Amino acid sequence: MNIALITIGDEICIGQIINSNAAWLGHACTDIGANVKRHVTIGDSKEELLKELHQLSREVDCIIMSGGLGPTHDDKTKDTLVTFFNDTLILDEPTLHSLKVRARLRGLPLNQRNLDQALLPSQCNILANPRGTAPGMMFEKDDVIYVSLPGVPSELKGIMTDHVLPSLRSHIEKESGKKPFFHTLLTKGIPESALADIIGEPEIFLKQDESLAFLPSYHGVRLRIGVMHEEKEYAEIRLKELEHLLTEKVGEYVFGSGNETLLSVTTDILKHRGKTISVVESCTGGLLGAAFSQQSGSSAYFMGGFLTYSNALKMQLAHVSKASLEQYGAVSKEVAEEMAIGGRRALNTDFCISITGIAGPEGGSDEKPVGTVWIALADDSHVIAKRFSFGGDRSINRERSVAQAIAMLYDVLQQQV
Amino acid sequence: MNIALITIGDEICIGQIINSNAAWLGHACTDIGANVKRHVTIGDSKEELLKELHQLSREVDCIIMSGGLGPTHDDKTKDTLVTFFNDTLILDEPTLHSLKVRARLRGLPLNQRNLDQALLPSQCNILANPRGTAPGMMFEKDDVIYVSLPGVPSELKGIMTDHVLPSLRSHIEKESGKKPFFHTLLTKGIPESALADIIGEPEIFLKQDESLAFLPSYHGVRLRIGVMHEEKEYAEIRLKELEHLLTEKVGEYVFGSGNETLLSVTTDILKHRGKTISVVESCTGGLLGAAFSQQSGSSAYFMGGFLTYSNALKMQLAHVSKASLEQYGAVSKEVAEEMAIGGRRALNTDFCISITGIAGPEGGSDEKPVGTVWIALADDSHVIAKRFSFGGDRSINRERSVAQAIAMLYDVLQQQV
Repeated sequence: MNIALITIGDEICIGQIINSNAAWLGHACTDIGANVKRHVTIGDSKEELLKELHQLSREVDCIIMSGGLGPTHDDKTKDTLVTFFNDTLILDEPTLHSLKVRARLRGLPLNQRNLDQALLPSQCNILANPRGTAPGMMFEKDDVIYVSLPGVPSELKGIMTDHVLPSLRSHIEKESGKKPFFHTLLTKGIPESALADIIGEPEIFLKQDESLAFLPSYHGVRLRIGVMHEEKEYAEIRLKELEHLLTEKVGEYVFGSGNETLLSVTTDILKHRGKTISVVESCTGGLLGAAFSQQSGSSAYFMGGFLTYSNALKMQLAHVSKASLEQYGAVSKEVAEEMAIGGRRALNTDFCISITGIAGPEGGSDEKPVGTVWIALADDSHVIAKRFSFGGDRSINRERSVAQAIAMLYDVLQQQV
Repeated sequence: MNIALITIGDEICIGQIINSNAAWLGHACTDIGANVKRHVTIGDSKEELLKELHQLSREVDCIIMSGGLGPTHDDKTKDTLVTFFNDTLILDEPTLHSLKVRARLRGLPLNQRNLDQALLPSQCNILANPRGTAPGMMFEKDDVIYVSLPGVPSELKGIMTDHVLPSLRSHIEKESGKKPFFHTLLTKGIPESALADIIGEPEIFLKQDESLAFLPSYHGVRLRIGVMHEEKEYAEIRLKELEHLLTEKVGEYVFGSGNETLLSVTTDILKHRGKTISVVESCTGGLLGAAFSQQSGSSAYFMGGFLTYSNALKMQLAHVSKASLEQYGAVSKEVAEEMAIGGRRALNTDFCISITGIAGPEGGSDEKPVGTVWIALADDSHVIAKRFSFGGDRSINRERSVAQAIAMLYDVLQQQV
């Protein structure tokens, strides 16, 4: 099943909002064995949406639209679908009822704009949206499935999970054609081109309908193996074989697979060994703690930390010495080490990671340009510190600092096996 | 100038990566007065890219491609462009030189894959990329501009800023047609449909070529006014008039405009009044501190904080009483208030915000379901606390907690004027 995604909204086109819905939809559809052919984003324009629907209905088996279902005049999707399917709007009693219940529970008046959301095209399957006011809609015409979803992420995900994915999955199971299957290996500590050199020309070991993609990121290069086949069982065996082949070549750089991340692999080790971690953050201001507490169940290993943005708090909380701050400056090996050692003692954990750096764009000097970051890691007997030189972008420097801090912890945990 | 963006990469299609480049490009192009008509994302396929180039070259004045310029076999953009323009590759000496310098500085060997990146189409303008290995390319054919950029965000942004945006801006300045101009008002504390009811039918006060969009988010609804006109001066006057008209109707809900955010408006007030803030975070694990330290210069108001993920640290650091934890639980008005009061005292700031909640998906109960969050704000004489009921999604609950914490601080600062 080939799928196209259409995101509708001026705010996405002009870049006021990042299109995270498309990534979620792409992932969810790939997961059930569909082939996501393209994403298209257009503005709030009936004419553009009609053009796109006419075009894509000739190219794919399913079109998933998101956005443009709100109660205001700039929301044009429902009206466009009525035109496209030559349909009429009728009152849907269950939707009206749920709008009334929702308004009552929240103590809000129900205005005409909200009531109009219960007027829905007569030909569609209505997909209930208990998380919001606009229901989803599903049409089928000339063997193409059309889905229209609200743009609010939690509502879109809810309707997809409750209604659309199960329905598409059963369609796909009835199909006889080839479906794509993927497996991803996660590497770190080696650049893309060096990895490609070691692996060699993929054509030598890949058969037809098989692929290998190199996906670089701040966290390392991911190797995505793809196999197109009718049979899930065959594809899984073949993915295992290719994984084995790649592991023989570059296994020393592989730290995980699939939806794992360096964070999840690292915190799994902590959990498994019953070890705890705390953080002392300066330039990242809490981002590392936010990462360690990102997963449910993180209280098993993450205890907390100090945000020592000011030098006064570096001294007061993590017991960094005034002498080191004056002699070496807040962004230095000495201060990073003292932050980690002092933090670990005060916070009473097995490990403590500190980050201190010049995130920028101001505050750099010749000796310590913007992007200079010191990260230290202390355990009960050692402390190690590393200097990094990132770039001029504040937000990227903070993200890369967090990624490197997690990589340092992973490396130390690996050595302690 | 109508612009289309093409993002190339299987990893975007299948949702392994969120397409934040497209948002950045959309914003940057809109900013210089271009009209971003659509974003298209396709996989690593020469055939798909060729089809898209043929199609879009008939519809827009400029096509900006990103991705597919890496050194591995799955990167197909350069090869596709050679086919599309019926061109040949030639060695570009300056690119080769910069590749060599880069490799020498980093102590890395230069392999054939890297050297091949200096082979570039003969017809293109080469756009230097000091941040990476693959340069950008710019072609012009039959009055359409084609730009090809690497997908690495920092490299893409660098090449756009250094080369592409100045060039497109000078093209746009030579055009005589209408260009879009925007102004955005930021509201909070009122839902989209109620805002639309107060504002009334936009057709009544909008002229032709003017628009009003309602853009909802966790932080409130943004009202984006649009004016298409030949003259920047006319458009700016008209935007001011429309802003004035909207402010008369819904001004009490407006807290800022343009690229401001509730965070930037709130921290500007802190800075202006010389006030300081600290945080004591439990379920958000550092996200609020990360928000307060997001902007350059935040050390003027943000001092730091405690991440008290464990109850032990809530007691030890913020001096939350054992009695409150036992009697009311960690997610309670009492504990939130004690966290804020104790944190403020220990961290020695004017304000302190605490967050404690059940982010989920586990840990809820009938009385305190997943999504229950208490936020407290203490100053030198008061403490206030609010209970929120978000939903079942951990990551959204954490984000909304941060948004509401900032909103509480904003409201208190407004009252203290």
